Amino acid sequence: MLNQEKYRIMIEDALKSYLPHGDYTEKTLLESMEYSLMIGGKRIRPMLTLLFCELCGADVKAALPYACAVEMIHTYSLVHDDLPCMDDDDYRRGKLSNHKVYGEDVATLCGDALQSLAFDIMLSDDALKMTTADRAVKAAHTLAKYSGALGMVGGQVIDIENENKNAQLDVLREMDDKKTGALIKASCEMGCIIGGADAKQIEAATVYAENIGMAFQIVDDILDVTSSFEQLGKPTGSDSDNNKSTYVSLLGVDKCKELAKELTKKAIGALSVFEADTTALVQLAESLINRQN
Amino acid sequence: MLNQEKYRIMIEDALKSYLPHGDYTEKTLLESMEYSLMIGGKRIRPMLTLLFCELCGADVKAALPYACAVEMIHTYSLVHDDLPCMDDDDYRRGKLSNHKVYGEDVATLCGDALQSLAFDIMLSDDALKMTTADRAVKAAHTLAKYSGALGMVGGQVIDIENENKNAQLDVLREMDDKKTGALIKASCEMGCIIGGADAKQIEAATVYAENIGMAFQIVDDILDVTSSFEQLGKPTGSDSDNNKSTYVSLLGVDKCKELAKELTKKAIGALSVFEADTTALVQLAESLINRQN
Repeated sequence: MLNQEKYRIMIEDALKSYLPHGDYTEKTLLESMEYSLMIGGKRIRPMLTLLFCELCGADVKAALPYACAVEMIHTYSLVHDDLPCMDDDDYRRGKLSNHKVYGEDVATLCGDALQSLAFDIMLSDDALKMTTADRAVKAAHTLAKYSGALGMVGGQVIDIENENKNAQLDVLREMDDKKTGALIKASCEMGCIIGGADAKQIEAATVYAENIGMAFQIVDDILDVTSSFEQLGKPTGSDSDNNKSTYVSLLGVDKCKELAKELTKKAIGALSVFEADTTALVQLAESLINRQN
Repeated sequence: MLNQEKYRIMIEDALKSYLPHGDYTEKTLLESMEYSLMIGGKRIRPMLTLLFCELCGADVKAALPYACAVEMIHTYSLVHDDLPCMDDDDYRRGKLSNHKVYGEDVATLCGDALQSLAFDIMLSDDALKMTTADRAVKAAHTLAKYSGALGMVGGQVIDIENENKNAQLDVLREMDDKKTGALIKASCEMGCIIGGADAKQIEAATVYAENIGMAFQIVDDILDVTSSFEQLGKPTGSDSDNNKSTYVSLLGVDKCKELAKELTKKAIGALSVFEADTTALVQLAESLINRQN
């Protein structure tokens, strides 16, 4: 598995270390942040940041704050997404969602604080010991842009507005490109930026990200109809229960599987501009469409 | 009124210009962001950023993205604070609160996107045309730190946990220092950082901020018992209705007025390390304790 297992441990350790530890008055808030951040998950986004940094020939430790920042943004979006006023999900990754444990008020603030912490760690003195201020600015700006109103959050609003509306493929595409794709693009681009990539390489990383992002979402839709609660760690069939259009409802399972394969092939093709060994990123792209949860 | 009126217009114009304008799918989200951001308010925080930058002898235009960023963070915190799962306030600045107009789901996302936008504008290419990457990193890091788990958001959690508990003065102090004080410190310090201040000047700005921050909160507590809905633009008496300890409930109105004056005097005293004319910041500190809303 090359360096991936080593990187996974690095990410878990770093995520934990970035949370403030000590005898703080805000104990409950910090606990709630740790609860959702350390509950598990595939850590795909931070892994992408490290792997692209490595591909550029740079020390992956420099990319670690940026890798963890994108995971914090992803986690805050899940905490807010599960709230009763949003998707109203009681479970996430097989455990109670944040607001079921800490209450809606703390869960709202937990998400807010995770977003602040993401920017805090990317711009901290420690992060700046491993990279230049120019690269730190560019990477953190990339994450801000992709996570905001015209990125991830925008995608969530498009999602909300299209419930019960039988959205067509173009709407679904824009929604997923933002809701899921934006953070995956941020992950890959930030790895390149910290790794010192040139414009052509950053562009290739974006193409890779766009394609695995869409494939990832399509597989999610497939799993929602073909998996069990035990496999996914959350209720299945939620898309059709909520009358949401999905790739599966529009195209059918077989066509979706085919499409996911095509997108993965395109993603892998984009990596050809890099001279270094791309095996890890090829394997990661393939593992995303072969996953069971 | 020196440059303050000119600066106020600069701030209003810049806030509006930083919001994405165009034919976006996320129209409702962008409208909700504009609704809360442009609803008015005293713009004290961005004004402080500009005035400290000016005091350091630098072009205030360089500080404008940082001034607007702190106002965006302040605004997002109000939008989330008004949510039913938090303070459940239907009115803000005399108008319906964000979730009463756009729904709780969009209001939650509106707050999230305002936070992202704050970091987006501070780290954008446009911002970097007016300042160095080093200063941009330091200023944006300052805002991230003060707005997060051990800053503003932390203060909100301490607030929630101390409802109906008759909190004592030390708890109230920590809560207000974080809930209100943290962003005021960020405002002043960022102005100094972008203005090129030395460590002694940044420290003086922090002392000024701490003291006007506490005075500001004490005056808020006084107004909550002495004002009308018309004067404040929001329901009064909410603190005692919610059984919240306040400076007024612990010390009484007269002692509070005295304390606010003392704190303002200390704040003004701290400005002596600056060689330039501090009149605007002296006036601003005084206006905060003489305000009627």
